[in-house]
Order: sequence, then C-alpha cells, then structure tokens
Amino acid sequence: MDYQDILEEIDVQVRTLIGKGKVADYIPALANVSPDNFAMAIHTVDGQVFSVGEADRPFSIQSVSKSLTLTLALDYLGSKLWKRVGKEVSGNAFNSIVQLEYDQGIPRNPLINAGALVVADCIISSVDNAKNTILKFVKREADNQAVHYDFEVVESERKHGYRNAALANFMKSYGNINNEIYDVLSVYFHHCALSMNCKDLAKTFLFLANNGVSPVTGDTVISPNQAKKINSLLLTCGMYDAVGDFAYRVGLPAKSGVGGGIVAIVPGQMTISVWSPELDKNGNSLAGVKALELFTTKTGCSVF
Amino acid sequence: MDYQDILEEIDVQVRTLIGKGKVADYIPALANVSPDNFAMAIHTVDGQVFSVGEADRPFSIQSVSKSLTLTLALDYLGSKLWKRVGKEVSGNAFNSIVQLEYDQGIPRNPLINAGALVVADCIISSVDNAKNTILKFVKREADNQAVHYDFEVVESERKHGYRNAALANFMKSYGNINNEIYDVLSVYFHHCALSMNCKDLAKTFLFLANNGVSPVTGDTVISPNQAKKINSLLLTCGMYDAVGDFAYRVGLPAKSGVGGGIVAIVPGQMTISVWSPELDKNGNSLAGVKALELFTTKTGCSVF
Amino acid sequence: MDYQDILEEIDVQVRTLIGKGKVADYIPALANVSPDNFAMAIHTVDGQVFSVGEADRPFSIQSVSKSLTLTLALDYLGSKLWKRVGKEVSGNAFNSIVQLEYDQGIPRNPLINAGALVVADCIISSVDNAKNTILKFVKREADNQAVHYDFEVVESERKHGYRNAALANFMKSYGNINNEIYDVLSVYFHHCALSMNCKDLAKTFLFLANNGVSPVTGDTVISPNQAKKINSLLLTCGMYDAVGDFAYRVGLPAKSGVGGGIVAIVPGQMTISVWSPELDKNGNSLAGVKALELFTTKTGCSVF
Amino acid sequence: MDYQDILEEIDVQVRTLIGKGKVADYIPALANVSPDNFAMAIHTVDGQVFSVGEADRPFSIQSVSKSLTLTLALDYLGSKLWKRVGKEVSGNAFNSIVQLEYDQGIPRNPLINAGALVVADCIISSVDNAKNTILKFVKREADNQAVHYDFEVVESERKHGYRNAALANFMKSYGNINNEIYDVLSVYFHHCALSMNCKDLAKTFLFLANNGVSPVTGDTVISPNQAKKINSLLLTCGMYDAVGDFAYRVGLPAKSGVGGGIVAIVPGQMTISVWSPELDKNGNSLAGVKALELFTTKTGCSVF
Repeated sequence: MDYQDILEEIDVQVRTLIGKGKVADYIPALANVSPDNFAMAIHTVDGQVFSVGEADRPFSIQSVSKSLTLTLALDYLGSKLWKRVGKEVSGNAFNSIVQLEYDQGIPRNPLINAGALVVADCIISSVDNAKNTILKFVKREADNQAVHYDFEVVESERKHGYRNAALANFMKSYGNINNEIYDVLSVYFHHCALSMNCKDLAKTFLFLANNGVSPVTGDTVISPNQAKKINSLLLTCGMYDAVGDFAYRVGLPAKSGVGGGIVAIVPGQMTISVWSPELDKNGNSLAGVKALELFTTKTGCSVF
Repeated sequence: MDYQDILEEIDVQVRTLIGKGKVADYIPALANVSPDNFAMAIHTVDGQVFSVGEADRPFSIQSVSKSLTLTLALDYLGSKLWKRVGKEVSGNAFNSIVQLEYDQGIPRNPLINAGALVVADCIISSVDNAKNTILKFVKREADNQAVHYDFEVVESERKHGYRNAALANFMKSYGNINNEIYDVLSVYFHHCALSMNCKDLAKTFLFLANNGVSPVTGDTVISPNQAKKINSLLLTCGMYDAVGDFAYRVGLPAKSGVGGGIVAIVPGQMTISVWSPELDKNGNSLAGVKALELFTTKTGCSVF
Repeated sequence: MDYQDILEEIDVQVRTLIGKGKVADYIPALANVSPDNFAMAIHTVDGQVFSVGEADRPFSIQSVSKSLTLTLALDYLGSKLWKRVGKEVSGNAFNSIVQLEYDQGIPRNPLINAGALVVADCIISSVDNAKNTILKFVKREADNQAVHYDFEVVESERKHGYRNAALANFMKSYGNINNEIYDVLSVYFHHCALSMNCKDLAKTFLFLANNGVSPVTGDTVISPNQAKKINSLLLTCGMYDAVGDFAYRVGLPAKSGVGGGIVAIVPGQMTISVWSPELDKNGNSLAGVKALELFTTKTGCSVF
Repeated sequence: MDYQDILEEIDVQVRTLIGKGKVADYIPALANVSPDNFAMAIHTVDGQVFSVGEADRPFSIQSVSKSLTLTLALDYLGSKLWKRVGKEVSGNAFNSIVQLEYDQGIPRNPLINAGALVVADCIISSVDNAKNTILKFVKREADNQAVHYDFEVVESERKHGYRNAALANFMKSYGNINNEIYDVLSVYFHHCALSMNCKDLAKTFLFLANNGVSPVTGDTVISPNQAKKINSLLLTCGMYDAVGDFAYRVGLPAKSGVGGGIVAIVPGQMTISVWSPELDKNGNSLAGVKALELFTTKTGCSVF
C-alpha cells in the first residue's frame, strides 16, 4: 500500500476542517498556536517513515504524554500499580472529580488527569529524579535530543492549574498521593509540556506496535504482554469522553492531547501520529480524528 | 495451533474456579441452573469447530442477545440509530438510571439495558413481528431450529422486571420510546430468554469475525464496515462494568450475559463462546472470563 | 393588624408579575388554565377569613395534596412510616430518580414525587378504599362537599405519567412498593387532581396551625406533636428545589403545587393560601411566592 | 418556666448516651478531648443565664463558627454574597465536591465547607486583617477576652486539610475564590479553631434571637431582616446531612460543629448552647441533639 499517497489524500481532505474547531485556550501558551497546522506521520515497525504537513514542527503533546508515564510506572511497579489506579472506562469528563469521590480517591484509569497524577506520584517514589528520568526516556525513544520541556507551558499550567491541584489534594485526602502535592503537580505539568513533533511521536511509540521493543533503538521498553495491555488501555480510555465514538470510527488504540496531537497504534504494523490544534467538543483534534478515520477507512487497518 | 488441546487445558484449569462465583438469582428460572457447568466452543471462519464441556447444553443467553438485536437495528436504521442511543462507554452499573437522567433519556450505548430497550423499540417499529423476526434470524444463523425462547424465563423476567419497566417508562417520559411499554418489554424479555448452546452461539456470531458475512449460511448479515463497528462497540461496551479489565486481560470484542455465557470475536479468524453460570462481582461468568484470558494468553489471539 | 388591607395591597403589587412566569404545560389539562388568575386567602385559628382575587375559583392543587396524604399516612402508620421514606432534604429536582438509586429505593422525603408514591402505597395498605378515604377527609376539613377529583386531570396525568411510573417501578424493584403499580399511580394521580379553591385550602390546613385540631370541625386530625413535625417537613422539603430560598424570603412552612397553589402555615395563628398559575423556574407559583414574601415582610409573621 | 430544673433533668437523661457516639478523630487535636463532657447553657434575651455541666470549659467550636463568619460576610456584602454562594439545602455530605462540580464552583450554601471557604474569601477581600476582625468580633459578642484561636488545632487542620484544599482549588478553577488559596484556608482553619465555652456561645449568638441586636453589648450586629434570614439558613442548612431529622425532632434554627458543640436559636426568646464531644453518624453531637430534642419537647419551644 502506498502510505505516502494516502497521507497526501488525507491532507487535502482534512484541510477543509481547519476553522471548524477551537484551539485549547485554558492556558495562554497553548492558545497562541496557529490553528492552521496539520501534520501526520507514519512509522512502520520495519522502519519506513511517511509524513505530510508540518511533521517536523514541535508542539505541546499534553495528555499524549500520559501513555508514556504510564509505561514507566507499569515498568517500575508492575501490577501493584492497579492498587492505586483503576483500569476502567470513566464515562465522565476527563477531569471529573465526581468519580473520584464516589471511588474514594482511586482514579478510574491512568489516562485521565487524576490517574496521571497518581502515575506521576508513583514515578517520583520510584526514581531519583522523575523529571529527568521521563525526559531522558522520551529523548532516547524519539532518538532526538531536541525533545524538551517547554517551560513557558509549564509555568502557564502551574498558574492555571487549580483543578489539577484540587484533584491532587482530593486524592491526598484519601491517602492516594504519597509525595508532596507541589512535586506531583510539577512532574505532571512538565511531562504534559513535552515539546515534540509528529515524527518524534510516531518513533517514540513504536514499542507499542512491536511487542514492547523499539525497532529503532532495540530497547525492550516493556514486556510484550504489558505492551498489549497498554494498547487495551489506550483503546478503552485514551480519547477522553469520545472513547466509544473513536473506537467506532477509527478502531485503533490511541491517545489524544489538548495540544491537538494524537498517536495511534496499529499492533504489529506501525504507529501513526497526527497534529492539528483545533479541537472538537470532546477535546480531541478535529482534523486529527478525521484523518485517522480516513486512514483506517482507506487502509482497513483497524483492530476490528 | 491445536485448538482442541488448548480448550482441554483450559477446561482443566478453570474447573478449579467452580464454586467461587455466584449464579444469578434475581429470577428463579436462572437460579435453578446447576453451577458446575462449563462449556467452550470455537468456530473458525474456515469452518473448523472445537469444543469442551457441555457445549451442546442450551442455556439462557440473556444480554448476549443484545448484540444480535443491535445488529438487526443497525441493519434496519443505519446511522439513524445513533440519534436514539449513544455509542459511549457508560462507566456505571449496566442498569443504571442515573446516566439516563443526566443524558435526558438517551442511553449511553445499545448494550446496556436501557439501550437494548431502545433497540427493541426500533425493531418493533421496523418489522411486522419483532419476536418472530429475531427468532427466525437467530435460528438461521445458528443453523439450528431448536433455538427457542424459554417462556419460563420470559415469565420470570416479566414478574421481576420492575427495574426494566422503570427504565422504559423513564425513557418514554423523555420521548425516546415510541411503542407501548408492554410491547417493548415483551420483545426485550423474549430475546434475553433465547435458549442456545455454546456451539450455536459461536456459529451465530461468525459474521462478526468475517466482515459481516456468515461463512456457514453465506448470508451477508451486515456490511463489512458495520461488522467492524459492532466489534468496536462490543470491545468498549460489552462487558458491563468490567470493560477495561476485560480488554486488559483478554483483549477481544465480546458480549456477556448473566446466564453465564460470553461470546468473543477474533476478527478475521474465529468466534469463541464460553458458558459457566457462576458470575463474578461484575456479573460476568467467572470461569468464562478466565477461560478467555487463558485462551488469548496461550494463543496470542488478542486484537492488540 | 388589618389583614384585608394587606391582602389588597399585595394583590396590586403582585399583579405586575403576571406574564413573567410560565403555566405548567406537561399535561394539557393544566396548560388550559388562564394565566392571569390570582387569589389569596387567610383563615385564622380564631375563625376570621380574608381573601382577594379569585379565591372561590377551584384549581388543581397538585402537589399541595402531598401534605394531606402525608398527614393520613402518619396518622395510620406513626413512626413506622419513616422506614419507608426519609425525612431529609433532597437537594435534587423534585422528581429525580438519581437520589432514589443512591438510596436504594428509599425516597428522601414524603413530599417529593417518589415519597408521595410511597405514602399512597401506605394508605392503600391501611384503608379499604384509599381514594374515597382521601376525598372524604379533604371534603370534611374543607367543610365543602364540592371538593372533587378532576377526572380530566387524572386522565391527563395517567396519559403522561411515564416518569411517575418509572419512579414507582424503580422503587418496586427495591421492594419499597407493596401494592400494584397501577393502583398506586391511580391513587397518586387522583389526589394530585383534587380541585379546590383558596378558601377551601386555607380552611383544610388549619389543623397544622392549631396543634393538630381543626378549629372549624373540632376534629383532632393529628397529635400536636405530629402537627409540629409535619410543619417542619413542609419547611425543609415543601418547596421543590427552592426550599432554602423560600425559607430565606418567606420563612414559613409551606407546600407548593404545579397548579400554582401554595399553602403556608403560621403556627398558632393562621393558614395562608395563594394561587396564581404561572410558575417560576423551580416550579413554584411566581406571584404566589412573591405574595407570601410580601405578607411576611409586611406582618413580620415568619417563624424566625 | 424553670429552665434550671429542665436543664438538670436533661443532664441526667442524656448522660446515659455517653459512650454511644464517637469523638471526631480526623485530627489529633480533636481526638484528645475527653468524651464524657456534657454542658448546656441558656441565655435569654432578657438577660437570664442557666447552665449545667462543664459550661465554662472551652472547646473547639469548629463549624459553629461558620454562622458567625456568614454574619460578617452578609454585613459586608449584603445580597451580593448570593452571587458567590447559594442558599439552598445540599442533600449531600457536608464536604461533598460532587455538588460543586455540578454547580460550576458555586457552593450550595454558606454553611457547608465549600461555602464557608467562599465566605472566608469574601471577608479577606472586605477587611484589612480577616483573622483579627473575626476574633475581635467574637470576643466582643462573647464579652470574654479569653476567647482565642487554638493554634494546635489550626496546625492540625492545616496538616490534614487536603480535602479543604481540594475544595478551595476546585472553586478557584471556576473563578470563585479571589484571594490566595493559602490565605483563604488559613482564615478558615483559624475560625474553625475558635476556643469557646457554652456560656460564651449562648451569649455570642443572642443577636440572632433578638432581631440582630445583642442585648448584652447593645450592638446592632446585623439588621432585623438579616437576622431572620440567617436563622432560616441555620434551619435549612445548619446540621450537615441531618437537617430534616433535626428540624423534625427539635424544630429550631441551629448550627453544629464536629467539636461536639451546637448552638440553637429560639427567636424572640433565647439562645441554647450544648456541648458533648461524641458524634452521631451525621457528625452532630449525639447527646447534644438529644438534649435539644428534650428541651423543645419539655418546653414546647420549637418554631413550629
């Protein structure tokens, strides 16, 4: 199949959506991104790379990073992680505190904000310098030393981070945060502020398409079994409140971020990253979801 | 791979779980089933059949039937169905009325009770005799004229069906049930009372593993695209409150019933049915879920 | 104090609100009432009667009747009633089913729909003919044989009563309705359809202002202690979602109905009834609440 | 009526309850209080004082203080206060964050934790030194310079105050906290840590029984109208989740604290304070509620 042709077709088709979504504006650092960006990249497990659009332009990966910290925490803690955070779908807004009260401080899954805060807390308890550890891991898997934390975004998040502070304090009141609130929020704000481009992202996530081993670095990032399990979590929890709709339309494990990035996994075959800053009402990239839907329709590449 | 050997291994392994779950007892007709049944059957798209245990003994398929009525409704209404029922994960108990109030009478998905009642309502509006139509369809796909409605179960459901009556009345108060409450409940109670065995079930669901076409009857039950989409709904909504856990442990689209049956789909390859009446706390067959987990672990047959 | 003057002042002041609310239209029989009605009546415990407006024109008392059936049920069952229904504020919409799920079929208080259905169920279990018993009681306390059930309203309620049917079925699924759903709904729809005028209402409720004894009939309707307790329930639960606001603005025990009627109690002194069909967003009579607020402001007659 | 005799009778009757409740233990500073304390004091508007038990022993008044800060905020802001906080019953646990999400950061009323945090924020914005202002006000109305903040309790609250920090951060994320989280929590923790005895409390609250004017100091603390309105808020929101039950059993406006204190108002006549550290399941003093119930039963002093 000629993936380059397919990407170029998609590029034309989704550009018409630009202007119909809304760039995330809850922090100024994100609101300033030009809304007409579109990029898409494919990285196959056998080493081919295809891309269209601004695939070399870095953006704030935001919640896409939650799948990377989850990978680290699962590697460090193994199944003990599941005493601290559930693996169930949430059925509520991604930052809902209601569920958390009902479940006594245990977030439903590691890919909603509350769950990612617990994951950050776990990493802090597991390594000497959580922020360095995360950055080093991502740089290595992206094979790109230019990957960095965007400190303007970090500061912007911190300044407007009252809801995340509420979540962290709330969980700590139930005993489900072990480190200082400030430290947990700091690690969380940093990994959400990772600045990467589409090619970086596709490369970084290859281990999830290849049984836990990166075909680029040769690293065994995680066991084959855990790689499958992370994919299952992405499919059931990765797309905010649109998990069912995305599974229905696209049918791939994926993780989305409010910066407009999405990474999708085709197990055994490839990773696909897409970026377009305008979001739909669920907080997923409008053009990005459409691009992935077109891709699976054109190629038949869904897991179903 | 020698599926027969694998099934026999699983049979030995899961029999140790008998006695650790709890047979559904909300209606007497279900409570009377012997708890020590276990059956498992595989039907491949190329026509091979494997089975262990009581795979010829019929049982009440209960909510497994919701995926079959969904198939019919999706065939009749196409995407118009999604104006009446969502396709999102629920995050709440399968018969929760809370979600329904929040969403103004629109059930979250067609595989929870409220959603299946809307699906039944849609079928009543689409065909002359909904009960006959459903039964005829299932008999044909199961290729077994012995498939029938168990009227004792129907009457038992009716007698204890106050919660389903509450759901139907509640949705009708929002204008989302068009036919008479009595008729909608009657169709629903009948399809839940379908009596089938594991071999029947595996055969009946083959169209979902084969792009919408039954390799047994040759029928195009539904389009390839819709078959994929039903599979995505099974994966994100098919296992009550254990969707995430089941995806994590098993990694296959599946639908469960309180009679202890589960059907899982391996797209492109096969269907797997399993039956054991004792349920876990989420209402899924305890030995059944374990059997499917062992199967995907031994064979690597998950979609991830 | 010259109550007649005060009522006439209020009449002038509240007439300006006509046109700013919305007549209940969920059933046609209520929607047809002329919106420009306003009536107010006072009946003192020492036998004086004052009124303005259409105080002799009957209207559908709707939920005002719930305080009367509560009185009967409390008389029949005593404190056993509180095993079937709570006495706590609800904090949710008056017909919310959410609370009911959370509290396993026990309504929060007897003045919300679910609670009044339980009360109706209790009366059915306590007397031979619940509908006759209720009507006979009200006729006697109103000292008016013209008080009647408006069968057009009953039929209209029945035809559109899906939400109440949902509540009754839901509670029956938890074992908290003992009689047939149809019978419970029938009694409920009848007492809500009581047709009475403002003078009738003020007279009927006098026992609550007079330690349980009607000064008109001399009947001991209920014990002094229970009269006080019913007043406390009216104050904390009688005004739908505006309990706090009404207590703040008016400061009297009161019960409201969607027909636009409100009855308020000044313990030891008098009852006040008011009627104006246009409702505010909480379902209370817009002019009625204002009239009562003006009354307590002018007279200082609040319980605080 | 011989109030001293009545108090002594009550003293004997409620002592039997000691040992049946549970002293608040969420912070060590409260857990250390001896559970067998009981005190009750009455202060009439015409200057008589009656008491039994340890009525001169100071205790942590905790949430009782919320009615005092509400008084100050209502005095400073008038009806503008109601843009920041509701005046409706909550129907949820007193520190529930669920309601707050549903209502977009506006607490249901000023007497739950979230509401009291908003009230503290309002006072900080209105005066130069909120903590001094509050303390000065209470010392003056108690006519006792020994009233003080218990700094051990303050520190204990701060150390375990994650849930209150969650509430404050959550509301700030909706823009409903204007000052720094740290400062708001500090004021809140201080006023909850006010150390007062039963006689102090009865004296301090006299203005609510006397149309806003303290008969002791002669101060017009608040307007007559606002005094009535604060009483209405106490009655509908002052007793955590037992508002309905307390109104039913006691029938007086009152505010409770987890330190085991309760203050009740008999409008026009007196204030009653009671203290016993063991709490019932709703967080109200077990012996305290019983003592007030006995008092209103013996004297007929309810507002109904």
